[in-house]
Amino acid sequence: MNLINTSSKNWSAIDGGITAPNGFKASGISAGLKNSKKMDLGLILAPKGSICSGTFTQSSTRASCIDICLDRLRNNSGKIRAILINSGQANAFTGSKGLNDCLLATSKLAKLLNLNVSEVLMSSTGVIGERIKINNLLNSLNYLVNELNDFGGSNAAEAILTTDLVQKQIAYETYIDGYRICIGGMAKGSGMIHPNMATMLSYLTCDAFVPHEIWDPMIKRVVKSSFNAISVDGDTSTNDTFLAINSGKPISEKYFDILENGLLLTAQYLAKSIARDGEGANCLLEVTVRGTKSNEDAINVARIISSSSLVKTAINGCDPNWGRIIAALGRSNVKIDLDQLSLWIGENQILENGEVLNFDKDIVVEYLRNRLKGEYMKDDKVSIFISVGTGQGFGQSWGCDLSTEYIRINADYTT
Amino acid sequence: MNLINTSSKNWSAIDGGITAPNGFKASGISAGLKNSKKMDLGLILAPKGSICSGTFTQSSTRASCIDICLDRLRNNSGKIRAILINSGQANAFTGSKGLNDCLLATSKLAKLLNLNVSEVLMSSTGVIGERIKINNLLNSLNYLVNELNDFGGSNAAEAILTTDLVQKQIAYETYIDGYRICIGGMAKGSGMIHPNMATMLSYLTCDAFVPHEIWDPMIKRVVKSSFNAISVDGDTSTNDTFLAINSGKPISEKYFDILENGLLLTAQYLAKSIARDGEGANCLLEVTVRGTKSNEDAINVARIISSSSLVKTAINGCDPNWGRIIAALGRSNVKIDLDQLSLWIGENQILENGEVLNFDKDIVVEYLRNRLKGEYMKDDKVSIFISVGTGQGFGQSWGCDLSTEYIRINADYTT
Repeated sequence: MNLINTSSKNWSAIDGGITAPNGFKASGISAGLKNSKKMDLGLILAPKGSICSGTFTQSSTRASCIDICLDRLRNNSGKIRAILINSGQANAFTGSKGLNDCLLATSKLAKLLNLNVSEVLMSSTGVIGERIKINNLLNSLNYLVNELNDFGGSNAAEAILTTDLVQKQIAYETYIDGYRICIGGMAKGSGMIHPNMATMLSYLTCDAFVPHEIWDPMIKRVVKSSFNAISVDGDTSTNDTFLAINSGKPISEKYFDILENGLLLTAQYLAKSIARDGEGANCLLEVTVRGTKSNEDAINVARIISSSSLVKTAINGCDPNWGRIIAALGRSNVKIDLDQLSLWIGENQILENGEVLNFDKDIVVEYLRNRLKGEYMKDDKVSIFISVGTGQGFGQSWGCDLSTEYIRINADYTT
Repeated sequence: MNLINTSSKNWSAIDGGITAPNGFKASGISAGLKNSKKMDLGLILAPKGSICSGTFTQSSTRASCIDICLDRLRNNSGKIRAILINSGQANAFTGSKGLNDCLLATSKLAKLLNLNVSEVLMSSTGVIGERIKINNLLNSLNYLVNELNDFGGSNAAEAILTTDLVQKQIAYETYIDGYRICIGGMAKGSGMIHPNMATMLSYLTCDAFVPHEIWDPMIKRVVKSSFNAISVDGDTSTNDTFLAINSGKPISEKYFDILENGLLLTAQYLAKSIARDGEGANCLLEVTVRGTKSNEDAINVARIISSSSLVKTAINGCDPNWGRIIAALGRSNVKIDLDQLSLWIGENQILENGEVLNFDKDIVVEYLRNRLKGEYMKDDKVSIFISVGTGQGFGQSWGCDLSTEYIRINADYTT
């Protein structure tokens, strides 16, 4: 599937999140895991016959809940019914005690839901090195299960947040052969949202049934062009998790492309909202690269630009400093013919086939300034567009500007 | 050669820089390349029979002066006599015109020095995308050559700076068989020292003769454990250059280890001073890793930690947030057995064989606070020490804290 074809033409955004698709229930409560009274425990319950796939952090210091997810997904061929998510403590680097907490929690939840424990997954986010307040969690599971309902998506989306500024959820619907298909999703913020937090979590639900052997590679392709294409600060977390679960009426193979397009739309929306809510950020940065040999090359180049401190600080300062974009591009491993390099910031062309154009710097400064003042996820997107040749490769990456506020959030913890 | 053996026992630091070794001359002048009256053109002249090796940026958008350096070093088997260095304009991404400027400058200089043009190298640093003010440069070459003298190292060290806060030069001497051997070096700051600058330049001179086939791999080993082990912001520049030139009395093979040790000391001093002078930095960060399978693994782990925004901001905030160090370590490609992981911040042990010790947080905060207030390159070093097992691998990396000042320097350019 080519990203160039990503459009929402088949899909309409609707209200709601993970409980928008038929049959999915969710809940979110305060279980006393955070120091505040905020919600900190969420639950997703999928209908019978559901199929789940996931991708996880590549970190070698990953949390043990990730090991449990991988193990159960593999042994159960994706037959997962429930996902328990806590915020407050990441339960990473907590050894056998942390692992045991995770086993206890999923085991008790399975009993309450009348499921096999192998059908229950768990995610955690919060302070690395701290164990979950397990007694508070266990004592709250009954209440959490009682709260499950068809409109619980918003509470679950709230419960997984740490210091994110906004809830992140989205739902899309389309009609295929007269049947409504719906995809829902939620996420919590990436990277260093809180001094001690380092986790991106995201969940997607879908009420069209797709068998595991199709669903799994489909989800992995989607992640490549969404969550794996964002960066706030380059620090991979110990708990990163994306889980996508489907259940419902099987759809015909001929509609798989449309479905994958909807999954990509949902995942990209959530990924962008995470990038936009990066610490101290004032805008969403979207880098689009075209003309490489492969899509992978294009995403690599886009990502190295969107995560460059040089580029991010320049945008924060409304500085049309295109030299930084070229320098960032130069340190990717992708071979670029400089004579074919063209560059736009917004609608403003800066380079054409390697030659600097006589562009109006003030207009570009104004473009950047307006985006930095723009409304969240509406008109706050800074677009950098790069064409590097005649190849068919296309890719995008999302990030945000880098502000002094980012440093303040991350430095002023003990002082 | 094992880094563990790196010590200064054979070598004494002395005053001076690149002209401390016998026979080397240098000069530095103001040629009107910068907008200010500051010096911006430097020259190193090596004695007859000199041998030069170098390493350069891996960027695909590298400046054309780098291409010229590579070409002449290769064709001439390292027989280089003069190095011309300008600051003000990086002359990167300036196409055939930029290349021609570089050819003109080295050609005129060769005539003035009565050298073959293939014996002359050139480096540039400054704004990417801007050509050198070539007429000003050409008109100043006569004066630059007239200024050459045995004590010109300091002027040359001044001329290559952009917005570095301090000059960076060092010299070491030792006595072998009653003969004095001297190594000198100078450098300019790394990364984003100025909104539009992105260049690290460094030069080393030595008055012991070592043949090219020995010198070249020796220099490449030295770079691996010095300049390639530092990071200010992760942005590789278009003009990064390190050139090491020797000329003098040949030394016996049995002293090559001692010599390499001196070269490493010199290069590490310069590399550290670059990291310490990172934009907005208040301290030098030194990460030491021991117990990996190979030295390369150890340097990789050390570097991923010293360049983590999470770790750097924590240090800036005097936050003994060891979870961030573990998370950074986790995203390296090196396999770590967590049960064997021990961690110290300064003298304070935090982890022992994967278990968190009951350390006194206040003492660690105090340790960090004192280092942030410490004197430049004296008592301002924050040490992180990690032991990951029983392997023989050892490596170090250097960086600095990340402050709000860094963002201000890099954002407030046009505004």
